[in-house]
Amino acid sequence: GGKRIRPILLILSCQVVGGRLERCLAAAAAVELLHTFTLVHDDIMDHDDVRRGRPTVHRRWDEATAILAGDGLVTMAYQSLLRTDHPELIGIVQKFTEGVLVVCEGQALDKEFESREAVSMEDYDGMIEKKTAKLIRVACEMGGILGDGTRAEEEALGRFAVCLGKAFQIQDDLLDILSEEEVLGKPLGSDLVEGKKTYLTIHFLNHAPESERRLFQTLWQKRPMEREAVLQVRDLFDRAGTLEATRQAVGTFIDHALKHLDGLKPGTARDDLGALALMIRERVF
Amino acid sequence: GGKRIRPILLILSCQVVGGRLERCLAAAAAVELLHTFTLVHDDIMDHDDVRRGRPTVHRRWDEATAILAGDGLVTMAYQSLLRTDHPELIGIVQKFTEGVLVVCEGQALDKEFESREAVSMEDYDGMIEKKTAKLIRVACEMGGILGDGTRAEEEALGRFAVCLGKAFQIQDDLLDILSEEEVLGKPLGSDLVEGKKTYLTIHFLNHAPESERRLFQTLWQKRPMEREAVLQVRDLFDRAGTLEATRQAVGTFIDHALKHLDGLKPGTARDDLGALALMIRERVF
Repeated sequence: GGKRIRPILLILSCQVVGGRLERCLAAAAAVELLHTFTLVHDDIMDHDDVRRGRPTVHRRWDEATAILAGDGLVTMAYQSLLRTDHPELIGIVQKFTEGVLVVCEGQALDKEFESREAVSMEDYDGMIEKKTAKLIRVACEMGGILGDGTRAEEEALGRFAVCLGKAFQIQDDLLDILSEEEVLGKPLGSDLVEGKKTYLTIHFLNHAPESERRLFQTLWQKRPMEREAVLQVRDLFDRAGTLEATRQAVGTFIDHALKHLDGLKPGTARDDLGALALMIRERVF
Repeated sequence: GGKRIRPILLILSCQVVGGRLERCLAAAAAVELLHTFTLVHDDIMDHDDVRRGRPTVHRRWDEATAILAGDGLVTMAYQSLLRTDHPELIGIVQKFTEGVLVVCEGQALDKEFESREAVSMEDYDGMIEKKTAKLIRVACEMGGILGDGTRAEEEALGRFAVCLGKAFQIQDDLLDILSEEEVLGKPLGSDLVEGKKTYLTIHFLNHAPESERRLFQTLWQKRPMEREAVLQVRDLFDRAGTLEATRQAVGTFIDHALKHLDGLKPGTARDDLGALALMIRERVF
């Protein structure tokens, strides 16, 4: 399962600079394996029971199995990447490794924010740049290098990816409260229930009137948070303009992403990168 | 903290084939970081509260922090290894990666054995070859390669390491029931309490008379297992000849390890490898 956005981005990034699919397949598999590793470990940390419509690894088996499965997945990601045949492979593996470390840092920040009172939009932006955008950026840049693109092309792909990654995460935050479990594959409001600081909670607390903020805090602090409370919070977010502002933020980041594509050669691959960006804006899961 | 046996082995392996220390320092740090990663994650899985005389990461902070710390450590291990300057670095990283995967497999077997009734000495031997001996083997072989040793030297180092690694693990099993917390840095009998299948439990069940076996099972199945029960089990192990047989098994593996050193050039490094093997036999923590 999974949307496999990261390997698709890597392959298209390789192709957009004139590289061939065969050269980057092992690396594409590596970024998907790495992404899967983060899901398995994050689901333990976030106490998530359902992923892609099925029980998470630590629920289906147990925590020890999920920790080990994640450890195995990150190792298999390296195995796959190391099968790549490219003169700059050492540099590529270094970039990949730096990416893994930054993603771990991002997840650490995300967890830390749960128990921190004041998280600003700037803090949030820095966190999602690490937690979500970094791996998407590494995927695109690796594609560019494996396709023997120019340094300028690699940089354009990196900038495209950062904007796309942030749009993706903010959309993710939005879907958490808009999409039902049957569509999203995980329970409605699971971020909210876990106490995560998202684009929505931060925007709301920055913009809603005090009485509404107080009502929100009451609903948010009660554990366990019931479905009814999640729906009430959604309503609060709607009335404060938070849902609309979040949609706009996604749109703005996608627009910026699309602009960065201008620096790349026109053709099918570039069109597909653009289409993928638009799909991410419209996605419901 | 820690004994840093793996980086020392890597450095001595590099030196014994005529290589220079500077060439292998980053790789030596990598194997120690990797080892630390396994400790942090294993301590979560094994519910251990104390390590090296201090609270384990998941006790001192929490499980999410410990999972992420482990993920960060394995990544930092790669970062360090990738700083190595050697024409065969890709092959070395591949060997390292295969090592990580095998160590994860070994830990998975170790956990699986806890809930499996019949674990034979052969099963155990295969498990410790993966869980413990593999990383020690990878350390020694990497040292040999980084020192530009011959293929024969690399193989001798690998065989030395497998015997040393098994001796190390069997001694570890023994110390679990012999060494007090103040010396060992973790509670007496923690393997036993966790229900681990060790050299001792398997030997005992293969050799003790039925009445003693039944008494052992009664003591072992009660949860929580108190200190008094651990001491009673130690007494049963002693009377059945299990403690002595375990000491002998360690001695035999160390003897085999020492024989494999014959294939290497005489000198200080080889003497030190031999001395390290003897220290492992005599160690009390």
